[in-house]
Amino acid sequence: MSTVRMIFDEDNPQVKDVYQDIRDSRNTKYIGNFWRYLAFDPLLLKNVWNDVKNLMVKETQIDKKTKEMIYMAVSITNNCSYCTHSHTASAKKLGMTLEEHSEFLSIVGLAAKTNQIVNGLQVPIDEVFDEDAK
Amino acid sequence: MSTVRMIFDEDNPQVKDVYQDIRDSRNTKYIGNFWRYLAFDPLLLKNVWNDVKNLMVKETQIDKKTKEMIYMAVSITNNCSYCTHSHTASAKKLGMTLEEHSEFLSIVGLAAKTNQIVNGLQVPIDEVFDEDAK
Amino acid sequence: MSTVRMIFDEDNPQVKDVYQDIRDSRNTKYIGNFWRYLAFDPLLLKNVWNDVKNLMVKETQIDKKTKEMIYMAVSITNNCSYCTHSHTASAKKLGMTLEEHSEFLSIVGLAAKTNQIVNGLQVPIDEVFDEDAK
Amino acid sequence: MSTVRMIFDEDNPQVKDVYQDIRDSRNTKYIGNFWRYLAFDPLLLKNVWNDVKNLMVKETQIDKKTKEMIYMAVSITNNCSYCTHSHTASAKKLGMTLEEHSEFLSIVGLAAKTNQIVNGLQVPIDEVFDEDAK
Amino acid sequence: MSTVRMIFDEDNPQVKDVYQDIRDSRNTKYIGNFWRYLAFDPLLLKNVWNDVKNLMVKETQIDKKTKEMIYMAVSITNNCSYCTHSHTASAKKLGMTLEEHSEFLSIVGLAAKTNQIVNGLQVPIDEVFDEDAK
Amino acid sequence: MSTVRMIFDEDNPQVKDVYQDIRDSRNTKYIGNFWRYLAFDPLLLKNVWNDVKNLMVKETQIDKKTKEMIYMAVSITNNCSYCTHSHTASAKKLGMTLEEHSEFLSIVGLAAKTNQIVNGLQVPIDEVFDEDAK
Repeated sequence: MSTVRMIFDEDNPQVKDVYQDIRDSRNTKYIGNFWRYLAFDPLLLKNVWNDVKNLMVKETQIDKKTKEMIYMAVSITNNCSYCTHSHTASAKKLGMTLEEHSEFLSIVGLAAKTNQIVNGLQVPIDEVFDEDAK
Repeated sequence: MSTVRMIFDEDNPQVKDVYQDIRDSRNTKYIGNFWRYLAFDPLLLKNVWNDVKNLMVKETQIDKKTKEMIYMAVSITNNCSYCTHSHTASAKKLGMTLEEHSEFLSIVGLAAKTNQIVNGLQVPIDEVFDEDAK
Repeated sequence: MSTVRMIFDEDNPQVKDVYQDIRDSRNTKYIGNFWRYLAFDPLLLKNVWNDVKNLMVKETQIDKKTKEMIYMAVSITNNCSYCTHSHTASAKKLGMTLEEHSEFLSIVGLAAKTNQIVNGLQVPIDEVFDEDAK
Repeated sequence: MSTVRMIFDEDNPQVKDVYQDIRDSRNTKYIGNFWRYLAFDPLLLKNVWNDVKNLMVKETQIDKKTKEMIYMAVSITNNCSYCTHSHTASAKKLGMTLEEHSEFLSIVGLAAKTNQIVNGLQVPIDEVFDEDAK
Repeated sequence: MSTVRMIFDEDNPQVKDVYQDIRDSRNTKYIGNFWRYLAFDPLLLKNVWNDVKNLMVKETQIDKKTKEMIYMAVSITNNCSYCTHSHTASAKKLGMTLEEHSEFLSIVGLAAKTNQIVNGLQVPIDEVFDEDAK
Repeated sequence: MSTVRMIFDEDNPQVKDVYQDIRDSRNTKYIGNFWRYLAFDPLLLKNVWNDVKNLMVKETQIDKKTKEMIYMAVSITNNCSYCTHSHTASAKKLGMTLEEHSEFLSIVGLAAKTNQIVNGLQVPIDEVFDEDAK
């Protein structure tokens, strides 16, 4: 159940072009629901896809599996179910093993735990962390 | 300004032992404020340090720099200033370059943006993501 | 699936009165699930409805459509699915167009992205923002 | 540094009355910064103070110390520094011991950790939790 | 729908042992979905269960019902549906009345409201809250 | 205190060009800290500035004051201090009155409160909200 309607290839030629680029770039016929609903505004679809393509699909400084794990960490912390599902699936396709998945979740859980304890204690920031002072 | 008082080596022998283990494991004389305030309960200090040591300081499945970047992603999303400072410093020590730092922030920013758009659209989760059905 | 039970008009006369006020104020027969579950405590129902009525249903300083968009922004950021659905529906009834919905989501997404980057960089606050100093 | 200006007793008679009620109800001369800045709108000050007075200052179902610890848990999770400081101080005044403070932080930390792991795993909700089905 | 597969007693002897300890400690035959999915890594299952057992199931400083209400407050604020359901059910079993449940939700709601207002006003922290200065 | 170093006009010609465009578009000599630290990566600076310029500085569907209030709502909910300060300042420059500021904060507070209550009750979403079914 969404706040907008799903858009199909035949509904809009601009949307169809972006869907085709997603299919080609990812070597799959499947278009995920995120894109199908985002297409309620074809320009927004195009802009977000370009951002994702340039940062996540293309080869960049950080390797693809690590990039997906960073994306997962943010999505889990923001509690975005859809994003957690889709980026966990992507990380697995890129080789994330069951052991890495488990260790990843342990880190995410430990970070959340210590974040909360730090917030509860209101720990002052050490002066040594100041980059401008270096 | 904290909700508890800072603890020094000479205040408590149990605390001193943990501080020494931190110094030895990290090859540094410096004890960060997190540990100095967490020490208001020496047992809590010991337990949290053991978790951090086993997961973050020891060699495990995921390499150390990636582990710190995952920790950073959670800490930034939870907006824990202290944690963001300390784990960014750790990632830099482990070799995170300026280019990687910038790309990391771009991923964290893009993830937050798409998380929000997905929440705004209330995108339904694709059936293909179901692990139990595989 | 809820943590409390749904309450109907015939279950409680106090609840029935609030439901009637909701129907009259909103010119509709439909009572949303939020009110039906909140009614597990008739006094809580009454208090929350009064807050919503005075701030959101009555004419105030800020126009109604803008008020719903502010409510949407908070609900999306807090990732409250129910609230996102109900306040998006309200904003549409008050005239939010598809173009405005899309632009709204772009702003919400951009804000989340820059919030995260600011948190990641730990940008110090400019002195010029201090109201007490003016 | 705030987005509004601090208001003093002599600035506004309505504000002075609320400040006096805070002083009387809490048996203290001190008015915290929250009230001093909230007073930029005297009516908002009055309404929020009434909510706090009725729920937190008066005797109700849940004992005062527990109420402050629930308030602390929300404030820490929302990472509101001011609120964490003020409600931790209140809980201490009401008798929260160092041991309870430490145990409280352990629970808050464990909850955050398991919340994140549940989000990461996307655990489906057990049918037994449905109140309507009972 | 989860990102990992559910594990049953017969799948793994280590998992079966933990499930048995959960059944014995809680005096129930039922194993909740959290444990059944967490068991994708038997060691993670064991560690998290030990944390929960020591802090939440055993008698400690803070009484059990209060501990569950603190856990609920964090889970609601983090918007973890599963955790909200399971810990609300636990609090009810431990005697949380309908009146306490309603008052609890009022506190959680008021805290969230004042947290947001404090963030919006950017209220500076009072010097009197500094523990190190005492 | 930041995790990167502040960049000045004379440090980098690409950065200087973006700063000049910010000055011209906003009709001010002042460059806020956000841009000065973001400039640690000149390309990231340029991309984020272009997004902000096109969506927030240019005339679009939604009026400028409303756009800043939406931005404020997200920033407050994400508890980004810097962003709350800078966008509150922008909204004031665009005409947000003290009365509107107060009403805005009341809406943001009420939304947060009802978001939490909905999460606590786990209210099921009404079928009438489904756009695909319309």
